[in-house]
Amino acid sequence: MPNPTTLPSWQKLKAHQHDDMRDLSLREELAKPERFEHFSIPFHNMLFDFSKHLATPTTLSLLANLAKESGVGKLRDSMFAGEKINHTENRAVLHIACRAPVTSKIMVDGENIIPVIHDVLTRMKDFSDQIRNGAHKGFTGRPITNIVNIGIGGSDLGPRFVVEALHDYNDGPEIHFVSNVDGHDISRTLETLDPETTLFVIASKTFSTEETMLNANAAKNWLLETLPAEAVATHFVALSTNLDAVQKFGIAQENMFPIRDWVGGRYSLWSAIGLSISIAIGFDNFRKLLDGAHAMDEHFATAPPDKNIPMLMGLLGIWYRNFYDYPAHALLPYDMRLGKLAKFIQQTDMESNGKEVDRDGHVVNYATGPVIFGEAGTDSQHSFMQLVHQSPLPIPADFIICNKPHHNLTANHQSLMANCLAQSRALAVGQTHEEADGDPFRVFTGNRPSTTIVLPELTPFYLGVLIAAYEHKIFVQGAVWHLNSFDQPGVELGKKLAKPLRALLESKKTDPELDVSTKGLLQNISGNY
Amino acid sequence: MPNPTTLPSWQKLKAHQHDDMRDLSLREELAKPERFEHFSIPFHNMLFDFSKHLATPTTLSLLANLAKESGVGKLRDSMFAGEKINHTENRAVLHIACRAPVTSKIMVDGENIIPVIHDVLTRMKDFSDQIRNGAHKGFTGRPITNIVNIGIGGSDLGPRFVVEALHDYNDGPEIHFVSNVDGHDISRTLETLDPETTLFVIASKTFSTEETMLNANAAKNWLLETLPAEAVATHFVALSTNLDAVQKFGIAQENMFPIRDWVGGRYSLWSAIGLSISIAIGFDNFRKLLDGAHAMDEHFATAPPDKNIPMLMGLLGIWYRNFYDYPAHALLPYDMRLGKLAKFIQQTDMESNGKEVDRDGHVVNYATGPVIFGEAGTDSQHSFMQLVHQSPLPIPADFIICNKPHHNLTANHQSLMANCLAQSRALAVGQTHEEADGDPFRVFTGNRPSTTIVLPELTPFYLGVLIAAYEHKIFVQGAVWHLNSFDQPGVELGKKLAKPLRALLESKKTDPELDVSTKGLLQNISGNY
Repeated sequence: MPNPTTLPSWQKLKAHQHDDMRDLSLREELAKPERFEHFSIPFHNMLFDFSKHLATPTTLSLLANLAKESGVGKLRDSMFAGEKINHTENRAVLHIACRAPVTSKIMVDGENIIPVIHDVLTRMKDFSDQIRNGAHKGFTGRPITNIVNIGIGGSDLGPRFVVEALHDYNDGPEIHFVSNVDGHDISRTLETLDPETTLFVIASKTFSTEETMLNANAAKNWLLETLPAEAVATHFVALSTNLDAVQKFGIAQENMFPIRDWVGGRYSLWSAIGLSISIAIGFDNFRKLLDGAHAMDEHFATAPPDKNIPMLMGLLGIWYRNFYDYPAHALLPYDMRLGKLAKFIQQTDMESNGKEVDRDGHVVNYATGPVIFGEAGTDSQHSFMQLVHQSPLPIPADFIICNKPHHNLTANHQSLMANCLAQSRALAVGQTHEEADGDPFRVFTGNRPSTTIVLPELTPFYLGVLIAAYEHKIFVQGAVWHLNSFDQPGVELGKKLAKPLRALLESKKTDPELDVSTKGLLQNISGNY
Repeated sequence: MPNPTTLPSWQKLKAHQHDDMRDLSLREELAKPERFEHFSIPFHNMLFDFSKHLATPTTLSLLANLAKESGVGKLRDSMFAGEKINHTENRAVLHIACRAPVTSKIMVDGENIIPVIHDVLTRMKDFSDQIRNGAHKGFTGRPITNIVNIGIGGSDLGPRFVVEALHDYNDGPEIHFVSNVDGHDISRTLETLDPETTLFVIASKTFSTEETMLNANAAKNWLLETLPAEAVATHFVALSTNLDAVQKFGIAQENMFPIRDWVGGRYSLWSAIGLSISIAIGFDNFRKLLDGAHAMDEHFATAPPDKNIPMLMGLLGIWYRNFYDYPAHALLPYDMRLGKLAKFIQQTDMESNGKEVDRDGHVVNYATGPVIFGEAGTDSQHSFMQLVHQSPLPIPADFIICNKPHHNLTANHQSLMANCLAQSRALAVGQTHEEADGDPFRVFTGNRPSTTIVLPELTPFYLGVLIAAYEHKIFVQGAVWHLNSFDQPGVELGKKLAKPLRALLESKKTDPELDVSTKGLLQNISGNY
């Protein structure tokens, strides 16, 4: 695959941006009656509105050409077919298989993996049921009322986000999440818990992630302060494939749920990593989450580029990142239940596409993944939105609303909806010198783009659709940028350098070969510690 | 004041960046024995290490010249003297006065405001004491065990961050925070509370902020489901200056704590807005927080530019934003108690300097405030740090560690410290082609700058120092960019546009004058709702 900047469509987009967009006024575009219908896509009673983008029909068709010329559809088809598109790690990329129906067939190394997936799902259902109906009891015979999910990165953020978002569906135990190796995390969490009624879910594919194992051991020690060693078998579950290590820890084999190597951490909430979700909201609701994601998978796999939601989300991102040089993207759910969306997608996106080496090992000469950040509105309006409205640096944004709330405070809800519409409108149309009564400090240039995504209500199904749309958006961008979006070499370097430093901290020694800053800091830490 | 880009020092910095920095290697710089001492500043047993920056002594001296030529010191002195440097709103900027000792004297409009401040502090102390020792009882005679702080933006984020950070000092009632107008926020919070033992702190200077008043009314209605109207007087407190509105709501005059107009929302945790903090950790600890901030104020006011911590933090930010074109800045506390630091500083910074109109009303032709984002490490390492290490877009970062933890999990703590040092080291020195064994995917360019801030432990005093350092960093940058960092016109526009949209949602009507996207979305919302 050639450098994307050399593709004819890239060159045409560059000229289009330079020649045609200079005078584009969103205010004028948004006065055209047909625009809303042309630029918005309904999907299962949801609505994805792209009409507030710096784009004309020509832009969309040039972007569709870029997708074609850069082989997005081809790479997508390879992913769905189970090919090893994560080539640096020689792995297939099959989170999409985790949500496929039992009748599907996806072959990896000559094996149809769909039955394997559904076996694990059946075990997850049984286990969730047993915790929820009290059949699985703690060591002293009391039912499990609290779950602590111990994992980090993908083994934490996905389940954490979904459990919080679907809080209103949680009729099972309370779910806690511990991720940080900082001992305050596990110790603050354990403070309020009773070992006899607590189940720990240890989420680590290799069962060797430093943070997770330190926290799992801290949890085990805490349990063993009041319960005997055999209690580990009933109070710990492993989401892992390292049977030896799991058994050594004391976890029963039947309490181990495997994750295969074709599920990447940041795309893993659909796999056994979703166990906490299934325990919280019940397996049937977890299945609806998978169904929503699967509906989006089918759409992504089959819809034509100009009506393909993740394709458009991804290509518009390319448009701003590479042709406007906008380096950041804001996620603004106007629904505080989706408060952790930005944190979750920040990981998925920035870890996938925050790279400068392309699939062929060449350093790129174009911008790749943006900085992703965000916050639930209206909180964001009283925080960083000042910059989004009025800085020299425009930041494209996604607004997300849920029409039907899960409370009866109508005035609050109307205010929330009105504020969301007002923000995207203000960004698009701005405020002229005249409208600002000549006050230069209240002039807003406008022409700041955004997408609005409308969910009829926040159900597991729609949430599944939403997450899968973002996953595929990231896929599209990685494909155009010719990156491997599925490895994470940056995580490895930190681990490698941390190991000798930890040894030095333990021994209170230093190493003359270290850089002077690290040496100085090490001395400061050791001296005070 | 002229455009900063026309200043001699700006031009010299431009040449310096272009000519001298091209070949600067942090790996080489960090091999120089004297560098750590030259580039790090101790402060009250804390340490601010700037040695991992893309800077030589020449850079620092040119940046100091820039500060001088752009009048940073002059504007700082004006702030400390109580001059009305928030000129668009004709207000002084005196959060620094809130933490000044009782012997100070700061005049505003001919009045020494220090006694006024200390009167409020005394009232805050008395009220906190009464809640904490049980003298202030709920309407039915039970002690107050839960506080709900209802505010948004500055009236929420500061207290929320500090209360979470100083959780280990909280020996008073549990503090909850409600900010979002989304009704899920207040309704989820009230779910677990008992009206008889709950006190609401309503934080709104004008007592008219839409979100805060809707939530305050929802709280009042909830209280009145079980208690009579007179109970409002004992269960609600107002942090406000609008006596009429406060009394109309049913709050007793003695339960109103004023905030004057020279305290901006995002700098207000030091004022009566800090009442929740004082109730949580006790007034003496709140005073120590103020003392820490005041110590930093004195340092900022008097230290020479090249040893002035906030000055250096701000100027290095300018260096990267304007001379390297790095658009974002990451905040990475390796301490999960500081987990909301990024969210808090994101507001303070982006709302202050996310502007394109300078103090004279001219549109700027240079970059202003960066995107601020971040997360506690090591969580961040398993999330967006991939991009920070290896994207074509370098992101300067601040690492913050606390030497002494408030738990006994030594292995966890050593791992946390080692990981923090390893991250800043990896960013600075990278990994060469040789060190990566020729694997192009594991090559890291390095030369990515960071500051490390070391606290001996997380006490109210050191936290006060830390927050004030960021406040003044933001001040320095706003001064160089010639912005008014103390207003927020972007917040107003959203409010103005939301009002008619809310009316349309209430009446389920539309307005033919609206843009087609807003019309379409409005119809979708109204139809489903």
